[in-house]
Amino acid sequence: MREYLKACAETTEAALRFSLPAEWDIPAPLREAMHYSLEAGGKRIRPAFVLSAAKAVRGSESAWEASLPVACAVEFIHTYSLIHDDLPAMDDDDYRRGKLTNHKVFGEAMAILAGDALLTHAFRLIPQAARRNGVPVETALAIVEDLATYAGASGMVGGQAADMLGEQGITTAEQLEYIHLHKTSDLIVFSVKAGARIGGATEKQLELLSKYARNIGLAFQIQDDILDLIGDEGKLGKRINSDVAQQKVTYPYLVGLDESKATVNRLTDEAKAAILEAELAEPERLLQIADYLVQRDH
Amino acid sequence: MREYLKACAETTEAALRFSLPAEWDIPAPLREAMHYSLEAGGKRIRPAFVLSAAKAVRGSESAWEASLPVACAVEFIHTYSLIHDDLPAMDDDDYRRGKLTNHKVFGEAMAILAGDALLTHAFRLIPQAARRNGVPVETALAIVEDLATYAGASGMVGGQAADMLGEQGITTAEQLEYIHLHKTSDLIVFSVKAGARIGGATEKQLELLSKYARNIGLAFQIQDDILDLIGDEGKLGKRINSDVAQQKVTYPYLVGLDESKATVNRLTDEAKAAILEAELAEPERLLQIADYLVQRDH
Repeated sequence: MREYLKACAETTEAALRFSLPAEWDIPAPLREAMHYSLEAGGKRIRPAFVLSAAKAVRGSESAWEASLPVACAVEFIHTYSLIHDDLPAMDDDDYRRGKLTNHKVFGEAMAILAGDALLTHAFRLIPQAARRNGVPVETALAIVEDLATYAGASGMVGGQAADMLGEQGITTAEQLEYIHLHKTSDLIVFSVKAGARIGGATEKQLELLSKYARNIGLAFQIQDDILDLIGDEGKLGKRINSDVAQQKVTYPYLVGLDESKATVNRLTDEAKAAILEAELAEPERLLQIADYLVQRDH
Repeated sequence: MREYLKACAETTEAALRFSLPAEWDIPAPLREAMHYSLEAGGKRIRPAFVLSAAKAVRGSESAWEASLPVACAVEFIHTYSLIHDDLPAMDDDDYRRGKLTNHKVFGEAMAILAGDALLTHAFRLIPQAARRNGVPVETALAIVEDLATYAGASGMVGGQAADMLGEQGITTAEQLEYIHLHKTSDLIVFSVKAGARIGGATEKQLELLSKYARNIGLAFQIQDDILDLIGDEGKLGKRINSDVAQQKVTYPYLVGLDESKATVNRLTDEAKAAILEAELAEPERLLQIADYLVQRDH
């Protein structure tokens, strides 16, 4: 599985490098700031969901190729959200994945603009999937609408806003779940749905795959909180207990470590059940990703 | 003409008020911050270009109705750009149109997120034009690609980046023109092209209308600089000579007032010539808007 996800990441990264053509007239520092964060690594888990869902539904390599621009688009969105989240007015982080954050290198103004440009460019990649990669026009437009929904005010941005507003005021697991659901799950739901749309999924399959993605997103975030509490510092690449140091309210903090682990397992089981019910051409990879994300130690 | 533009603005503002449905699950302060700036007034000139271009090409009221969601989308983009431009890390403005800027009311974090959410939501409105207003799917997808192009890194955001990077270092009218072209013209070109696409324009018409819009955008911006230098304080709603006070390099500063006025007239004449060449069903409104924007005193 590790090798499979690595292959997804490499495919995505190769495409990301060419996603801002050299002939485009972009001020050099803006272009550099965009590439700096796009190429700062990370698990590239969202693109892996796009690619894997497309192939799972259609069962052919052609779905992988067709969905690559959308895989890049979701990474553009994820990258912009990290740049803006790290800003002094937001989480005020100097480092991410062991590298200086965007605004520490390029200044706050350029970091804000690089985020805006990455967010905008994501929507340019989706019509390209229709023009160059054979995705039907109706499918591409549905993906545009999904992306704007799951990444917007009632989705990822809403989750981040709730997180900023709730700091230290969160007292129930439900409130925290709202934040996780929008801040993390929504973009994973988008990724799985977009891939599935390109693969030619039915409405029923889209619904089941959304449930899978929603659960996996929540489990992924709770697992992150657990790892932050108990994980190995070197593997995770950030200071253990940094959430505690920042007085950040986490799932284990609210319900305890054991119940957190039980919740991760329950969510994962439900996610896998949804996949099996969806009668996909090739369900294996999506099942394996679910297991892998729960068992990971970084 | 003033009445016509007022009617365009009222139509747009009525639609803007319902563009974030009440049933959507958006954190209240984020929703308030979005509405605060959306409803802060302004000329609504970009939506007027969308609506007018659609009707000019098709020559029927149906084009106006069909293009309204896109008219809202461009105002969402314009509004987000103002919120982010006003941030302390950018232009650091406390007031806009006589009202406190977004971050002065809602704080920097919420202002950044409100901008992100408005930008994202613009792309949600375009598929709606296809789903509810009868715009063909291919047209809607072309408009999505145009919006991402003209508003992105090689468009409006690129212009703002060049502006930030060039402050005080700009010495030629060409450099300044680059900034105006992207910071102002690009979104006007988008507006006119999007309306024209909905009206069913040919490639040749799109090209001529783009020339019109590019010139009008430049003329509009130079006129803004002229008015800042000579206009009447009350009418313009900001301190006269505020650009000079901020040591902002303007077109009249670089080439003188007379040549600036001559350039505005030349650009406007060329714009009107392009409209006449395009053989539109109803060219009058676009011609009138061109004249109005040059003759305006605020």
